[in-house]
Amino acid sequence: MKFGVIGFKGRMGSLILDVFSKDNHEPVLLIDKDEIIENDSPEVIIDFSTPDALKNTINLCEKYQSKLVIGTTALREEHFRLLENLSKKVAIVQSYNYSIGINIILDILEKVNKILENWDCEIIETHHSKKKDKPSGTAILIKNTLNRDVEVHSLRLGGIPGDHSVFFSNEGELIEITHRAISRKVFAIGALKAAKFILNKQNGLFTFKDIIKEELQ
Amino acid sequence: MKFGVIGFKGRMGSLILDVFSKDNHEPVLLIDKDEIIENDSPEVIIDFSTPDALKNTINLCEKYQSKLVIGTTALREEHFRLLENLSKKVAIVQSYNYSIGINIILDILEKVNKILENWDCEIIETHHSKKKDKPSGTAILIKNTLNRDVEVHSLRLGGIPGDHSVFFSNEGELIEITHRAISRKVFAIGALKAAKFILNKQNGLFTFKDIIKEELQ
Amino acid sequence: MKFGVIGFKGRMGSLILDVFSKDNHEPVLLIDKDEIIENDSPEVIIDFSTPDALKNTINLCEKYQSKLVIGTTALREEHFRLLENLSKKVAIVQSYNYSIGINIILDILEKVNKILENWDCEIIETHHSKKKDKPSGTAILIKNTLNRDVEVHSLRLGGIPGDHSVFFSNEGELIEITHRAISRKVFAIGALKAAKFILNKQNGLFTFKDIIKEELQ
Amino acid sequence: MKFGVIGFKGRMGSLILDVFSKDNHEPVLLIDKDEIIENDSPEVIIDFSTPDALKNTINLCEKYQSKLVIGTTALREEHFRLLENLSKKVAIVQSYNYSIGINIILDILEKVNKILENWDCEIIETHHSKKKDKPSGTAILIKNTLNRDVEVHSLRLGGIPGDHSVFFSNEGELIEITHRAISRKVFAIGALKAAKFILNKQNGLFTFKDIIKEELQ
Repeated sequence: MKFGVIGFKGRMGSLILDVFSKDNHEPVLLIDKDEIIENDSPEVIIDFSTPDALKNTINLCEKYQSKLVIGTTALREEHFRLLENLSKKVAIVQSYNYSIGINIILDILEKVNKILENWDCEIIETHHSKKKDKPSGTAILIKNTLNRDVEVHSLRLGGIPGDHSVFFSNEGELIEITHRAISRKVFAIGALKAAKFILNKQNGLFTFKDIIKEELQ
Repeated sequence: MKFGVIGFKGRMGSLILDVFSKDNHEPVLLIDKDEIIENDSPEVIIDFSTPDALKNTINLCEKYQSKLVIGTTALREEHFRLLENLSKKVAIVQSYNYSIGINIILDILEKVNKILENWDCEIIETHHSKKKDKPSGTAILIKNTLNRDVEVHSLRLGGIPGDHSVFFSNEGELIEITHRAISRKVFAIGALKAAKFILNKQNGLFTFKDIIKEELQ
Repeated sequence: MKFGVIGFKGRMGSLILDVFSKDNHEPVLLIDKDEIIENDSPEVIIDFSTPDALKNTINLCEKYQSKLVIGTTALREEHFRLLENLSKKVAIVQSYNYSIGINIILDILEKVNKILENWDCEIIETHHSKKKDKPSGTAILIKNTLNRDVEVHSLRLGGIPGDHSVFFSNEGELIEITHRAISRKVFAIGALKAAKFILNKQNGLFTFKDIIKEELQ
Repeated sequence: MKFGVIGFKGRMGSLILDVFSKDNHEPVLLIDKDEIIENDSPEVIIDFSTPDALKNTINLCEKYQSKLVIGTTALREEHFRLLENLSKKVAIVQSYNYSIGINIILDILEKVNKILENWDCEIIETHHSKKKDKPSGTAILIKNTLNRDVEVHSLRLGGIPGDHSVFFSNEGELIEITHRAISRKVFAIGALKAAKFILNKQNGLFTFKDIIKEELQ
């Protein structure tokens, strides 16, 4: 496929460029703060950059009728409204976490949350010290899935790609469910899976969970 | 209820005696290697002792028509055959682990095992240094649930009541599901739950999972 | 020895009463909110209750010329001043944590802190949901040992007796040092060790670390 | 410096080539099974390949009078004898683990091992599923430092760069000391540090620990 990357010089952007290129896809639109490379019309645009970039990304999607895979975290309500509008015209995958493991864990939590409703519950997330948002988008996803008032502890440590743990405990026992991203590459691989998924969708706003579910059927 | 405890002087036996008594049940049959206290006919006999004791326990169940809650680990095929025979006459709960948390985890593993079939998988179990069997009965339960060739690592450390971890990993991510028993009391509480469960069953061989399932409905 | 326990009906108080009695020491002064048992003059008074109780405890120490082992957490400056005054007359051991393991870890942290000064550092402490103070006294001990601006994350989960973890990380690696109290009994055993330690001291304010150091020589 | 890499196409070899080149050093000798690039005489040769390659590596060191940084694991006694012989002529750094964190942990273990001699102790090491040797060289280093009969559990999981944990426990508490390599790059960075260290040494057999010690002074 012909693809575009927003923030292609950043950590995630360059990984995405790398993973897509190695899978024989063609980068035709590369954008960063100080550089724009526009060679052709992309079928899909991948944006794992910052909320500030979103408006321009949406303009590009409309200009080229490109589908969108968006992994930017710390989005606000106004951003979700923009995405919903765009999704009437092109297909979008939006997720705070593009790893298969996290999405399996979200599925588990949905199922066990009710049985464990009387157990205490807390969340810990650990990321590299350069991550700006707190808590992580994934921790927010987990909290929303649990749908109760649960405390999130955010650690910022060295070069950790991303750990998330959920703890449930009563007087006599403790359950811990933990996910560790071994390298940030796992999110680029998930973005590629998402790009392939929406290639044959017309429009609509999808999540990474929809992809996992389609795969499980 | 009137209850009996096999191995009532041991670690688990004395906890069971304690937990049942505090819930206002009456110990009427207390047996250990060097002492037998037989005051009345027990409705339920609880045995968390050793495989060697099983034959005598079964004789007592037949003599008194008592139901049986058995938590002994390291049972062999011959023991299961004895239990199956007995279960035609009285109701039995047999489980290698009487904690709610472990049984929830077994349920989770059953569900995610298929999606994760291509991920590497290993198990770690840690128990106090006085535990004789290796691997733990619970680790065997977990392995059987996963139904694949997975390595179990057994650590024997100080006074740890019982930790179990299952790891799944591929090139890019790791999922860890861990259970920690905070005190051995949790198993005595589970045994009490099991005893109440079979009080109104005529016969049959049940597991702790059946109890969890009934509770979830 | 003849000993006294302040808050002898509480979780820690009753454990202390139990551990000291089993080691053949004689409880001669037992105090709780609604009950006072005063049989004889105690050689040592053990107080693991609340800061509010301290003033009365000090009066008792003065009245009986008793030594003091104090494990109460969340003490304020005023309390430390009271203890210092008392320590001119009788020997005192004051510590926020009476476990050997924690004190070994404090010793390790003192040694490695300098080499790791450019690594990120954070602390997690987890305790049972009934613990009132946040962060734990032990986490404060750890933070003071590290002597830098480090974040402490406090989790309150079910019946956890007490976990403490210190994380150091740079871009390429992570060091984790964790302590787990397996049961609260470990602190009662430490209190007994402390009581024996000050029996032959005239006066002065000691910490549990002084005891570990004496033992290591 | 002018450097050589043995196994430059492998995982570690290509990382070493990358890290040294980015630090402005010049690769002049690159060797793998099916390719030999020999442009100039290297000041240092870096070998993180397999024990089988060692003999040829030693020949190259003798031919070029190159210093040697060797990180190959699973070396046998015969290999150490070869290294000792070579070290009379050129300076060598040999270590099973080139991370700063692991070497700090080895230092800690040396110090606390005696106090904890009556505590149970076990080791867990986890590496990616392609690692061939079991237990890891680092686990062997740890075991040798502890100098007692301690069990090592080896897990092989997905893409884990390398985790090592040491557990000490008695009846009442547990100490865990864990190291996690966040990416394999950390070992290449350590190799670069080692190469700089021996540049101005004439001969002798050094370990990575000697480097840490020199740095601490």
